Amino acid sequence: MLIVDSVQHAKAGHAGMALGMAEVAYFLYRHAMRYNPTSPKWFNRDRFVLSAGHGCLLQYVCLHLARFQSVQHGIMSSRFLCYTTGPLGQGVANAVGLALAEANLGARFNKPDVAVVDHRTYCIMGDGCSIEGISNEAASLAAHWKLHKLTLIYDDNHNTIDGSTDLALSEDISARFEALGWNTITVDNSQGNLEAFKNALISAHSETGKPTFIRVKTTIGKLSRKEGTSKAHHGTFDDDDVKLMKQKVKWDDTEAFHVIPMVYREMQAQADLGGRMEQEWHSKLYYYQNKYPEEAAEFKFLLADGMLPGWECSLPKWSMSDPVDSTRGYSGKCLNELAKVLPGLIGGSADLASSNQAYLHNLGDFKQPNSPWGRNIRYGVREHAMAGISNGLPLHSGGLIPFAATFLVLSDYMKNSIRLSTLSHAGVLYIFTHDSVGIGEDGPTHQPIEHLAGLRAIPHLLLFRPADGKETAGAYKVAIENRNVPSLLALSRQKVAGNVEGTLADAVGKGGYIVSDNSEKELPEIILIGSGSELCLCEASANVLSKEGRRVRVVSLVCWRLFNRQTRDYKELVLPSSVSKRVSVEAGSPLG
Amino acid sequence: MLIVDSVQHAKAGHAGMALGMAEVAYFLYRHAMRYNPTSPKWFNRDRFVLSAGHGCLLQYVCLHLARFQSVQHGIMSSRFLCYTTGPLGQGVANAVGLALAEANLGARFNKPDVAVVDHRTYCIMGDGCSIEGISNEAASLAAHWKLHKLTLIYDDNHNTIDGSTDLALSEDISARFEALGWNTITVDNSQGNLEAFKNALISAHSETGKPTFIRVKTTIGKLSRKEGTSKAHHGTFDDDDVKLMKQKVKWDDTEAFHVIPMVYREMQAQADLGGRMEQEWHSKLYYYQNKYPEEAAEFKFLLADGMLPGWECSLPKWSMSDPVDSTRGYSGKCLNELAKVLPGLIGGSADLASSNQAYLHNLGDFKQPNSPWGRNIRYGVREHAMAGISNGLPLHSGGLIPFAATFLVLSDYMKNSIRLSTLSHAGVLYIFTHDSVGIGEDGPTHQPIEHLAGLRAIPHLLLFRPADGKETAGAYKVAIENRNVPSLLALSRQKVAGNVEGTLADAVGKGGYIVSDNSEKELPEIILIGSGSELCLCEASANVLSKEGRRVRVVSLVCWRLFNRQTRDYKELVLPSSVSKRVSVEAGSPLG
Repeated sequence: MLIVDSVQHAKAGHAGMALGMAEVAYFLYRHAMRYNPTSPKWFNRDRFVLSAGHGCLLQYVCLHLARFQSVQHGIMSSRFLCYTTGPLGQGVANAVGLALAEANLGARFNKPDVAVVDHRTYCIMGDGCSIEGISNEAASLAAHWKLHKLTLIYDDNHNTIDGSTDLALSEDISARFEALGWNTITVDNSQGNLEAFKNALISAHSETGKPTFIRVKTTIGKLSRKEGTSKAHHGTFDDDDVKLMKQKVKWDDTEAFHVIPMVYREMQAQADLGGRMEQEWHSKLYYYQNKYPEEAAEFKFLLADGMLPGWECSLPKWSMSDPVDSTRGYSGKCLNELAKVLPGLIGGSADLASSNQAYLHNLGDFKQPNSPWGRNIRYGVREHAMAGISNGLPLHSGGLIPFAATFLVLSDYMKNSIRLSTLSHAGVLYIFTHDSVGIGEDGPTHQPIEHLAGLRAIPHLLLFRPADGKETAGAYKVAIENRNVPSLLALSRQKVAGNVEGTLADAVGKGGYIVSDNSEKELPEIILIGSGSELCLCEASANVLSKEGRRVRVVSLVCWRLFNRQTRDYKELVLPSSVSKRVSVEAGSPLG
Repeated sequence: MLIVDSVQHAKAGHAGMALGMAEVAYFLYRHAMRYNPTSPKWFNRDRFVLSAGHGCLLQYVCLHLARFQSVQHGIMSSRFLCYTTGPLGQGVANAVGLALAEANLGARFNKPDVAVVDHRTYCIMGDGCSIEGISNEAASLAAHWKLHKLTLIYDDNHNTIDGSTDLALSEDISARFEALGWNTITVDNSQGNLEAFKNALISAHSETGKPTFIRVKTTIGKLSRKEGTSKAHHGTFDDDDVKLMKQKVKWDDTEAFHVIPMVYREMQAQADLGGRMEQEWHSKLYYYQNKYPEEAAEFKFLLADGMLPGWECSLPKWSMSDPVDSTRGYSGKCLNELAKVLPGLIGGSADLASSNQAYLHNLGDFKQPNSPWGRNIRYGVREHAMAGISNGLPLHSGGLIPFAATFLVLSDYMKNSIRLSTLSHAGVLYIFTHDSVGIGEDGPTHQPIEHLAGLRAIPHLLLFRPADGKETAGAYKVAIENRNVPSLLALSRQKVAGNVEGTLADAVGKGGYIVSDNSEKELPEIILIGSGSELCLCEASANVLSKEGRRVRVVSLVCWRLFNRQTRDYKELVLPSSVSKRVSVEAGSPLG
């Protein structure tokens, strides 16, 4: 009835799924999940993802009943929500990311005598989530990695917005998950009998080699006159329908938002259990620290922000005398040096590890037989799931710094997930190589000439297009310092002309800066503005113009967003408004 | 050996897949597929899609052996290729689109006594294609629609770029396709025995309710020293490896690009068969025309460009006195009027048909029991497959005009396919509603404030953001007139202020034009430039400024790309360069 009252109060919302899954969600919060409402960020808590994010009312109501303090009725927000789902399927990938983080950290830190990382991940998905491509990709990986502590609960209510799922769905979803390698269980909860669901969870918990898929047959909009139809998907109820629903469950209290005190008491029991478990976990951690001080120190870094003081000193320093390389080549060297001092750096490529030069040498492949603790993640050709999974990692542990690599052109496959990184403050590091036409023989399908514009338009994302080794190292530094937002490195396949005399790693944080200027005390006549592999073209052109007696300035615009954030004075200093002869050079769309 | 010679000559290419699948592809072109090299665009030919597009050498070689005239060795291009695949998984969706077109047109035009639409669609995919989310979405739909004339051939060579598929793949792909509803067959072709493959095709051809998935176990880079390893995926061979390969198959001819004359003769037999079948088809068509003249006339329109003269007159005409509506509402009315005069207009939404107002009333749902001929396609929550399938439709028949609808924010899920629409000249009509912050209660995950910028940067795509009914109708007209490129309509959820006095349907083709100006014979002091739901804000502001005695012009910039294509004089007329006070108003990213 809290769900009903909330949707009536807000005059909007998606009560249908919330009503259909109310009993299941209550069971999870009351009996299954381990959490502590007075310590909501407790590291070893179970994680919960509502992939069918439109049903968030359900989660708010559960959080309220469990007395998470900041949840407010009808206002539909909670600071205990860590991530944004909504675009369907994303949450499934996020949940795989959370379970991956648990498995990876467990393999790295647990000892035969003490497990400091040991929790489950639950995810609720709907029909839409189940048929989106990203969820199939992510589910395939979850089984490949044997993430047995992951439980995916499928709200099988047989309705989507446009009508019955019969309109567009005839596959056997359970059989598909079985084919992917999951333990699958079907539960009929349309009559509200939770015994079968309880048994399904027991089976899930006893599974040690597979993630578990629980298909729960439910009734959308249960109790209401719209029940079982797509009309219940979203929107409010008629007043007399509300009255009828309350009668059906003998809800004689007429006051809205009423909660029977016993429900709070019931939920309190689970909260108390969570509190005791957190205490136990702290005792374990104490024991761990004494017995394994070195591992404990690293583990604590990962629970905080993952930064060892002075980490940035490990970044390579390049000069003009160094051999020339591609910026993907410089990037690979930065990444490998950083991996030595940042224990949370973990990630991989969608089957292009060597092309992207995004492989951590000697740090193992996650879940391969000899390296369950490996920090290289082999995503296979699954760009979208890679991005969705990456979003789950920093949200699991503040110190995890995920990187996700592919060709820039394939960022299209991941775009919604990249967007959600910014909305969820997931500090993913996107390493996108082959960033323009200089990609070799693959042709237009693989030439990302328009992608920089689209990615630069995503609010908050920091997009770096470094020109050489120095700027690449600088971009890594700024990216890792700014982990409340994702960063994206657009990198060349081809060798750049070498390190440019005037570039500076430390200037990357300004977004744009003067690389060279022969104007001495005067203002330049011409400003050449370049980024990435085209900055050296600007330098070469400036040299020619300089010989012709022109006053020329070259500006590197390595990150537009950071340059925009500088003071008016600084921007005027770099790009004086009185100099109107400006040429921008970038091998891509001029948009912007 | 043509494959080997080609990759050596071009010093690049992906010979591994081509060698592993050479026998299968040869069998398809020699024995299975119906085509006529002297009439390559014959309507009733079988369609072939190489989803693993990097292996295009294989296709070029087959086209050469079949004597399609414009194929040239080593130059790797052919004007007989209709679409661009490459980004993995796309081709599977394209093939489903081709098979859908065949099934839809067959249901609409075939008669009990004569089938004028009757061909098969073949698609080869690799490991990468098989695990990309888009292929699972598309395969799910193919089975739902019972596209039994579609045969998907899976090149199971157990290798991707990064190494063995064991790195990232442990699902049972055949079982997954079975769960999706496919007829599945496994063939071991690693020893070059084509008998089993032949039997698989016979089984596929006898299947009447399901598409068929043939898993062919092959050896990547067969014959070469790299065979069976990921090293064979791409790149050239050592010269002595080439020598060894030629010895292995007793290829004593030393000249590169040698073809044994018998091979041409063998292939010629199939070409001759295709020629005879085309003749038979023309006879059928003649009979059909005599017996069913009305249907034949419509069918012929669909084989050409699908345009009935005067079609544009059916577009609604709005004026200021009409009731206000959202632009999605105006769009829905245009779409339904157009559907009456454009028999090729066919499409659907990814489970948002009513939200998008993209439903053709009284024209049935494709493949629902009562309407196999339906022109509404129910894609379910599968945006990416919707876009990939839509690309297949206009490439099947010039007169098919597909529309694909969802929320603008979810264009992210389809971005790569949209990009491929432009590269393949597939005139898809993208109908994207809820185009900015005015979307109701859904919040930031569903507010596409950055998407216009990214989409406008895609070369060739025509993006329209109409302000009212008149401009919406104008946008439809221009979009349908320009079907060599895709068009995108960005439409509001909320009602706009009404039809604006100065807007003109006929001006949309210019991309930008003057809506109002109170300057009389002088130049304006200020130009307000708006698009979509913000144009009326510009008009309202202009009224205020006008009352204050200012000379103000309002410009509608409904399609940036078309405006950019106008003459310098016209652009100067609309936006005089001497008027530097310009305000652009669009509820989205200012990028651009």
